[in-house]
This record gives sequence, structure tokens and C-alpha cells, in this order.
Amino acid sequence: MDKLLFSSFKKSCPYLSRASPSELHALMTRPFSTSPRTSMVKNSCPHSNAKTDSSILDKASECPVVGSAIKAGAIPSSPDYEGIFEHKLQKKHSDKSYRYFNNINRLAKHYPKAHTSSRDQLVEVWCSNDYLGMSNKPIVIDSMKKALDDYGAGAGGTRNIAGNSALLLELETELAGLHNKEAALVFTSCMVANDATLTTLATAMPDLVYFSDQMNHASMIQGIRNSRAKKHVFRHNDLAHLEELLAQYPISTPKVIAFESVYSMSGTVGHIPQICQLAKKYGALTFLDEVHAVGMYGKTGAGVSEHYAFRDGNTSVMDSVDMITGTLGKAFGVVGGYVAASARTIDYFRSYAPGFIFTTSLPPAVAAGAITSIRYLRQSGKERFLQQTHTADLKAKLIKAGIPVIPNPSHIVPILVGDAEKAKWASDRLLSHYKIYIQSINYPTVSVGEERLRITPGPGHTPELVDNLVQSIYEIWDVAGFKTIDDWAKEGGKCGVGAPADSRGPQVC
Amino acid sequence: MDKLLFSSFKKSCPYLSRASPSELHALMTRPFSTSPRTSMVKNSCPHSNAKTDSSILDKASECPVVGSAIKAGAIPSSPDYEGIFEHKLQKKHSDKSYRYFNNINRLAKHYPKAHTSSRDQLVEVWCSNDYLGMSNKPIVIDSMKKALDDYGAGAGGTRNIAGNSALLLELETELAGLHNKEAALVFTSCMVANDATLTTLATAMPDLVYFSDQMNHASMIQGIRNSRAKKHVFRHNDLAHLEELLAQYPISTPKVIAFESVYSMSGTVGHIPQICQLAKKYGALTFLDEVHAVGMYGKTGAGVSEHYAFRDGNTSVMDSVDMITGTLGKAFGVVGGYVAASARTIDYFRSYAPGFIFTTSLPPAVAAGAITSIRYLRQSGKERFLQQTHTADLKAKLIKAGIPVIPNPSHIVPILVGDAEKAKWASDRLLSHYKIYIQSINYPTVSVGEERLRITPGPGHTPELVDNLVQSIYEIWDVAGFKTIDDWAKEGGKCGVGAPADSRGPQVC
Repeated sequence: MDKLLFSSFKKSCPYLSRASPSELHALMTRPFSTSPRTSMVKNSCPHSNAKTDSSILDKASECPVVGSAIKAGAIPSSPDYEGIFEHKLQKKHSDKSYRYFNNINRLAKHYPKAHTSSRDQLVEVWCSNDYLGMSNKPIVIDSMKKALDDYGAGAGGTRNIAGNSALLLELETELAGLHNKEAALVFTSCMVANDATLTTLATAMPDLVYFSDQMNHASMIQGIRNSRAKKHVFRHNDLAHLEELLAQYPISTPKVIAFESVYSMSGTVGHIPQICQLAKKYGALTFLDEVHAVGMYGKTGAGVSEHYAFRDGNTSVMDSVDMITGTLGKAFGVVGGYVAASARTIDYFRSYAPGFIFTTSLPPAVAAGAITSIRYLRQSGKERFLQQTHTADLKAKLIKAGIPVIPNPSHIVPILVGDAEKAKWASDRLLSHYKIYIQSINYPTVSVGEERLRITPGPGHTPELVDNLVQSIYEIWDVAGFKTIDDWAKEGGKCGVGAPADSRGPQVC
Repeated sequence: MDKLLFSSFKKSCPYLSRASPSELHALMTRPFSTSPRTSMVKNSCPHSNAKTDSSILDKASECPVVGSAIKAGAIPSSPDYEGIFEHKLQKKHSDKSYRYFNNINRLAKHYPKAHTSSRDQLVEVWCSNDYLGMSNKPIVIDSMKKALDDYGAGAGGTRNIAGNSALLLELETELAGLHNKEAALVFTSCMVANDATLTTLATAMPDLVYFSDQMNHASMIQGIRNSRAKKHVFRHNDLAHLEELLAQYPISTPKVIAFESVYSMSGTVGHIPQICQLAKKYGALTFLDEVHAVGMYGKTGAGVSEHYAFRDGNTSVMDSVDMITGTLGKAFGVVGGYVAASARTIDYFRSYAPGFIFTTSLPPAVAAGAITSIRYLRQSGKERFLQQTHTADLKAKLIKAGIPVIPNPSHIVPILVGDAEKAKWASDRLLSHYKIYIQSINYPTVSVGEERLRITPGPGHTPELVDNLVQSIYEIWDVAGFKTIDDWAKEGGKCGVGAPADSRGPQVC
């Protein structure tokens, strides 16, 4: 506190100026409400004789002297919490990362259409993570309605207390079967599954070291951070860098390599077999997030790790991954997350992970819908085929039109804009002029300067819709003068656009 | 690594004994697979000439010398991860905190009954957190079915990307109205709401200090821990201790007091008005978890903070709480969590909390069910009245029978057993002999030595069912010779049983 400033206030107050030295000292160092103000009360200061603490504070701010002293920081006051939050929000406004959510209501009977805030205003959704339209499948919806009738709306408790239903157990058996693991455990989301499992691994192994791909999802970053274990970040998909980091430690040091199969914002694909080989060589566990792959890759939709068996007859890849996490909320169309692993690993998470233990279970109807959806996609390859076909069609046509598609081997079609304001403008214009909804992806989801439109074609995006989308994007690029593939190439390329990409990963389409 | 041990292995191997000094040094310090073994290969060791790293490791364990050297720890090997997990599980078995989940399927049309793993085996559920049976209300279920038909099974994206539906916005408006706050924000659970908001507060205020009630839920403990902010734990419901801790800091230091209204495992109630007054005096924000109170207290079910307006006409208590978190998964009967606060605070969480940003939104059907349930309970006091009547009836009859009910002023009826094995035995016997399901609550949910049965009577637990329950518990206590109220009193009392409780909080029934 500024002594000079305080003494200037003291001079202008007839009560304060006659306060005792100890009172003055207290006023300068303690909250106003707790300071002794005996002499000030005696001198009839109208702001010092309030009876309760809260009215003292109210009175204090009314006092012309104390009020302005507080304002000027000469008398300590409580923090301006609203101001602090406002300051953080202004920061987002000024760097253009403030988010305005679009009101999007995807219509079950008119997939891939949605209505906006107005029910009669329909738009075409091109960026949903309901990748295969399973959310709208009548068999999924019907199984949920049946479970609602049978078991009600909610689970009514944690897994330990009244919330452990036969449907959840059945779902976990189904998931273990899907990934050919001994067991699986369901969480309220894969955000929680990743966070809780990665945090909890370090509880068992205090000297654990994490090796984490640079482009890992926020949930994994959070889990590793919350574990407080030592960690190394390896450059995206860079096996040499990973090995260099692994080799620093004795084989006896517990290690976990955490990575993804399909990286959601770039569409690049992790080198699963090679990473599992490195893990074996250096004695590490592998933790693979298949969130953007389950339902969509492999013969039965178990993800990219199953794709190898499908393509090359190499059945060992999926088995060599120690822990696979996935979601029930994207290609499976419902909500929730899970981990599949050995029976002991799963029992360890079940017994120790706070994010699993201390939360209400997923509702029976969610479990029922997920079971139906997984079983359907284990049998049917039609949705996967159409998704890949429409994706290939869209990518080819966009590239032909010069639109800067970030190259990758997956079902994700990111278009590089490279500026937050421009990306939002393009997204807004697609919505207002073309009735097409594609969300712009800005910081912190992608790095500054790598802002993009992210398109996720699904089985319902027919060639006619693809043509219309390409034409719309072309017009927007033309009107705005956005950079084309050639423009990016002239600048030396970015995110693999106009330059050879070295980290897009193995071909999986 | 033990040099002596290693040299004994060296002697018994014809290839190892002729290895060069540098090879020997490498073998003793580096993973077997990465060590140079040139001379060993030259000497035709069958375990050193494998081509790939993974086969080297397989071969190494086949070798009688290297294999037993690895086993004995003389040659470094990768950690025995399965053994590590097994060890942690054994720890839970040996201290009796290992959890066996009961298979409980609560039947919507036969509340409060459920079937177990066998569909024709019905039990009475007395420990669900579907406190008011709202999960089974046809209007809730019907609203969810309608939303399923209209908008499908899942949200299909985060709030920012295709997952921001009109129903979620309507739900947030409803929640803000319920708590008389400017805004509200929905999370996938209140575990996540507490964790994410408490962590994110410290992002805005690096010098934040937390003051946390000793009995706070795991979600708050986790959020505060993950924030890495400084924290003080005050003794449960001890206002003098809280003030002592607050007074250590200048008023200008940002502070958050985190506490609950109804503590779920003891049923004690937080001193909301007094804590808010302390917060004002010391310049702190208040963070109140009303998870076990929303829907159940106050004129419209806004929680204990609303109860004061209802009982005393004191409308200022709820308004003086800065942040209120609650759940959609207990009294409201569905799933999900939320925080209600000022518009700026909510916008700050919306813009900065990873647990909100990076996860798939709650499905439209969940939002629809929650809206219906909240609206119903804002109008109807019948369920609250029946819950309180049945609770009072049960508590009185148990106490009359000498059963050690932990005294508290809320709807929670905890019965002290004081031993993990005995509590589980009582729970198992209630299920097998009386077809009554009451989960035993053991460590880590409660402290060791305070194990209990936790009963949650609801509107459906009629006086006849109460009588039958009291008789069943009485028989179990009699057969097992469990401690009665008098027995606990003779030992000086525990958890308020047989002794005056000083922390049970204000009367709210």
C-alpha cells in the first residue's frame, strides 16, 4: 500500500486524521471491516459505526474518503472478481478467439439437416462428429426408448451405489469384444476416460514417465498434467524423436506412450505398429485414443488398430496396444467414453480412478443405444464405405478447385484459412448465404495461424451435396480472395498444403 | 543393478563370459534389446542374433541365463505392469475396500423396486440418489422420447462444433432462473462441473487461495488440486476455523470458499448464510455445491440456499452465493451437472474451462428430460413433502429401535457400522434375506472406522415399507450383535452417534 497516497486521504478526512497510530496502521494493512475504529467512532464518523461486518463494507464504500481510498488502492479492498473475468473475456475478443456458438438442432428424420434457432430455417450440417449418422438410426432410437420405458431416465447413482445396471455391464462386454481385450470400463465421456485413466496410472507408478504426441487431444494433455508425472512431448508422428526420448531412460523405468489413431483437427494418422514396437523395445505401455476412429475403421469398426488386420491380415497390431480409449458419442452416435485393456488394468481403473468412482453412471437408455449402435456397426460396413467414398469425392473436387485441403489419409477434410477472423467469416457466410453449416476451428483447438474449416462428410452427404458444397466454398474463396493451394505453395506451404507433409501418417482409406 | 549377481550369471553362460567389457557394461546398464552383442553373436549365442527388437526380447526371456538374470533383477527388464496393478488390487482386497458392484436395474414402472442380474428377482431400492423418483415420471420419460424422435440419440459434437442445441440453451436458462442467477452452464456431470470450474478459476487468478471444507466431495478436492492453487482445508462446518484461516490473508488476495449444502455421506448441512458473511468480510467468492439439495429444498427446489427464503423470508442467502453447482442426475433424475453464477463468470467458464470446451455435449433428449423435471419440481412440493415425511418417520423408528443413525438435519439416513467387512456383510444380508438393497459405504468414500449403510428414503417409501425396513435392520443388528446407539455412547460416541454432534449444521427439514 502506498503510504503517501494514504496520508493524502488522511488529511482530507476529519475522522481519519484524528485516528490513533495503531488504528491507522490497521487501516493500512487489514481489511477495513476488521480494523479497530474506536477513535473514529468516538469522533462520530458516520461510516465507522455500522454494526455488522457487511454493512461496514457497504458504508465504507459510501464514504467519500474511504471510498475513493479503496478505489485508488490506498486502502486494501477485495479483488474485483467481475473485472478479472471481464479482462480474460476481453483478451479473447481482442485476439479473435472468443467463441459464438451456433444454435444447431440436427433433425433425426432429415439427416444431415438441422434447424437453427428458428424451427423453419433448415441448414445442411457438414461438421458433425456424428460421423456415420448413427444418432438418427431408428434401431438406436428405439432401443433407447425401450430402455427409458423399462428403467427410467437416469441411473440414479454411481456404479457402486445403485447405478450398476445390466445394460452397462453388457455394454462393457460388447466394447471388450470389439477391441479384443479382456475388459472395458465406461466413463461419462472420453474426456473423462482419458483424464481419469492417465491421471490414475501415475497413482500406481510414482516414477512413471509419459511420452505424449505433440498433437494429442486436450483430454490426454489434461490427464498427463494432472498426474504430475514426468512427461516428454514428441513431435507429431515423429518416430525418431520418440525413440530418442525413450532411449534416455533405463528399460526398468515405467513408461506410457500416449497417442491417437486419427488426429481430429488435421486428420493425420498415428503410426500404431511402429509405436507399439518402440514400446516393446523400451518397456513402455501404449495408450491409444481411437476416439475419431472407432466405428469407422477396421472390419468391425474397432478403429485404425483393427484396420491393419483388415488390410494386411496383421492381427497383432490391435493386440499390441495396451490401452485403447474410445467414445460412444461420435461414430456410435450417443454419448460417453471408455477404455479397453487387460482385466487387471481395467479393475485397477475401476478401483482407483476418481473420475470413474465419484460420478453418476450413464443412464440405462444411453447404454442401450450404444450397444445397439456398436453391434450394428460391427456387422454393417455400408456406412463406412459411403463415408470414405464421399470423403474421397469431396477431397478430389476441392483440390481440383484449388481449395487448400490439408492433406491426410482419413475421413477428416480440413481446409486451411490461416486467420481466425477470416475462418469465422467464411463459416458465417456459408451459413447465411448457402445454408451450409461448417464450424470454423480457431485457437485453442488449433494453433494460431492454422485456423481452418473442418468438414466431416458422412454417409448422407451424397455426390450432389458434395458438388453443391464445393461450388459454395469455391465462391467464398473467390469473393474473399482467400489463399488457394498455389498461394500457400508460393509461401513455402503450411500444414502440408502446398508442401510435402511429413507427418500425415499411414494411409488408412 | 547388482554387480555380484550379474557376474554369477556371466560365469554360467559360454557366450556372455566371452563378451567384451563394453558389451558387458551395456548389458548391465541398457535395455537388453538395445545393447551391442557383437561378440556374443560371433560366438553363436542363439539368443543374441534375432533380427528385430521385439524378437530379441522374446528370445532373451527364453535364454536360461539372460531369462533368469532378468527375473532376478540382474539384467534390467521392463516393469511388470500387470504385477503393479495386481499389487494395488491386492491392497484393496486386504484392507477390505475392494468393491463388488451389485447388479441393480431400477424399474421405471415399479419404483422403488429393481431387478438384479436375474429379471424375475425383485429387490426394494433404499439407497438410490434418484431421490424423488423423477427418473420414473412419465412426463420426464415422454419428453425424452419426443426429443429422441426429433433430434436423435446424441449431440454429435462439442458445444462449439455442431453440439449447441436450442434444448441445451433452454435448459441453461431454466437453471439460471431456478437459482436466480444471470446465467448457467451445463457440463456432462457435476463431477466435471466442479473439477473444471474450480481448476479454471485459478487460471484467471494465479494467486488464488482456496478454503475448502474438510468433508467436500472428491470432485471439489480434485478441482482444487488440479488448479495447483494454494489451499486451506477447514474443519467440517467449523466457522471459527474458517475465519482464522481467512484472516491470514490481506483482503486483496483472491479467495474462494468451497463448500456444500448437504454433505452426502453424513447428511450434515453447510452454514450458508454465515459462510457468505465471512466471504464478504474477507473479500472471498463463495462456491456452493448443492448437488444433494437441488430439487429437494426451498420453495421451488433450488436447494438449501433457497430454503432460507422459504423458511425465514430471507431472500438474500441464495443471492449472496457467487457460484452454485448442481446435478441433473440425482433429484432431477436424468444425468449431467451445471454451474449457475453471474453472466461474466459463466462466460468465463464457457470460454476457458477445458472440461466444458473439449467434450461432446449432453444429448438433446437428456436436456429435454432435465427441463421437464426441473419445471415440474419448481411447481410441485408433493415429492419434497413425502421425502421429508418418510425420512422423519424412518429416523424416529430406527432411533427408537436403538439403531445408530448418524444425526443430521437432512434427508440422508446414515447408519454407523464402523467396520468395512461388517458393513458389506449387512448390505449383502439385507439383499439376500430381505430383498432390500442398501449399499454399504466404505473407504475412500468415508473414513476408515466410519463405514456405514446409507439410506435415502423417497416419496415411494411408504410407512409400510419403512416399518419393514426398520424390522429388517433390527434383526440384522440383533443377529450380528452390531453396536447400538447405547454401545457407541459407552465408547464416547462416534460421528455424532451417542454424543452431541457439533458439525451437523442448521436444521433444514
